[in-house]
Amino acid sequence: MSYFTEDNSASTVNERMGPETDARLAEVMSCLVRHLHDFAKEIHLTQEEWDYAIGFLTKTGQMCSEERQEFILLSDVLGFSMLVDAINNRRPEGATENTVFGPFHVDGAPIRQMGDTISLDGKGESCLFEGRVLDIDGNPIEGATVDVWSDNADGYYDVQQPGIQPKWNNRGRFITGADGRYSFVGIKPVSYPIPDDGPVGQMLGHLGRHPYRPAHMHYLVTAPGYQKLVTHTFVGGDKYLESDAVFGVKDTLIAPYERVENGATLWRSPFDFVLVS
Amino acid sequence: MSYFTEDNSASTVNERMGPETDARLAEVMSCLVRHLHDFAKEIHLTQEEWDYAIGFLTKTGQMCSEERQEFILLSDVLGFSMLVDAINNRRPEGATENTVFGPFHVDGAPIRQMGDTISLDGKGESCLFEGRVLDIDGNPIEGATVDVWSDNADGYYDVQQPGIQPKWNNRGRFITGADGRYSFVGIKPVSYPIPDDGPVGQMLGHLGRHPYRPAHMHYLVTAPGYQKLVTHTFVGGDKYLESDAVFGVKDTLIAPYERVENGATLWRSPFDFVLVS
Ligand SMILES: [Fe+2]
Ligand SMILES: [Fe+2]
Repeated sequence: MSYFTEDNSASTVNERMGPETDARLAEVMSCLVRHLHDFAKEIHLTQEEWDYAIGFLTKTGQMCSEERQEFILLSDVLGFSMLVDAINNRRPEGATENTVFGPFHVDGAPIRQMGDTISLDGKGESCLFEGRVLDIDGNPIEGATVDVWSDNADGYYDVQQPGIQPKWNNRGRFITGADGRYSFVGIKPVSYPIPDDGPVGQMLGHLGRHPYRPAHMHYLVTAPGYQKLVTHTFVGGDKYLESDAVFGVKDTLIAPYERVENGATLWRSPFDFVLVS
Repeated sequence: MSYFTEDNSASTVNERMGPETDARLAEVMSCLVRHLHDFAKEIHLTQEEWDYAIGFLTKTGQMCSEERQEFILLSDVLGFSMLVDAINNRRPEGATENTVFGPFHVDGAPIRQMGDTISLDGKGESCLFEGRVLDIDGNPIEGATVDVWSDNADGYYDVQQPGIQPKWNNRGRFITGADGRYSFVGIKPVSYPIPDDGPVGQMLGHLGRHPYRPAHMHYLVTAPGYQKLVTHTFVGGDKYLESDAVFGVKDTLIAPYERVENGATLWRSPFDFVLVS
């Protein structure tokens, strides 16, 4: 037995775990301690910087409420949320890629008929979203649920403006038939800032970063026997595509937005989703 | 420009920092992001584990108040506080080593005369603490302030029991004369648990660890022209010496506690402090 030193720090901490510790917990904690200690050693973290970090983490926790999750924001802007999403959703070429779920999904959105509109506040530029839900071989998937949500033309989700936006504004669920097709009318989404009036927003400021996400439509696509797909489609040409505050953009998720001539909507955005089993 | 992937994750996040970012902040954040991403990749962190961690950090922040700093506890039990202390207080052989400051110091303790007692509640086994404050060459340092604090015989600091313990119980400051000597009467300290009724205590439980610290007397020794010394002396033989919940023990800080024959006190604990300039 030797006491804690700068050299043996991580192993001394990790050897302290009891023999009954859950094996996975022991593995995760050992790895975390090793990397945190390596960080402090490599950067020669000062006592003042440590103090500052303790204060930052405390404020981040205290900013959290039923309506606000500042630690998720922190994870998001450090690319950690996207990394965990990527690690856990490796898919073969041709399958639609995942991206971050985000904080604005609501369970139980109304099930609507194909072609219905989800935009209930009459704002924004109308857009027809349509395409197919396919398996990796290109066959249509029947009975897939396409759960969609976006912000309104002012850049807010309905849950951010209760009493201002109609309930379920820009949300809906659509169930595919035998052809695997989905279609609905929404608006061309707009870019919006993540909440930046807390410690995470302040940090972004110190790092010379803006809080904006490029415009996107959220999708949660599920079908019995297939892996859940959590993704967005992004509006091609958005000025924040290359600087998404949460690093959610992937090449394959940038969707076309075609101007419609003489149609009932101003835009049309076609996109097929490919699920893996 | 390429979008975020599992492979380029840390560099993509770090390249997002603006050119005006403070150089040290940029260095610290890049290093942190690199190590956090390496951690998630190495351990293949699952989405459920990430969810759990977000909840844990949130509860840790929300446990913090004026009287309680749960994030410092978390840093302490992961050996991170001791590591930062070690990195920032590397000293030559022969100089007294630092250890963690802890949360219970109070500025402005009464300045007392050499030999005075600091134990005001009449509890515990009395102990004479004495020794010298020296420079690295063994010369006495005049005008050094020896600021001391310990728990009482029940294992609580006075600030943990306002209205129960007398104010400034087991605290005091002593100024050395030309001989560099200090002496005071306190009690032989007792081991105590760090606050374990929050998320950090729960974590210790999951890791099969106890929350106890081996008995110790705190010292903050300062003198003009010398580096501040923040340390403890530990009671030799304490049953938690080899399992301090916060990893504060160092070989060189274990002090003798000699039983006194026919003296005014039950114990005597001699210890010299060696400061570096
Ligand atoms: Fe969103
Ligand atoms: Fe203590």
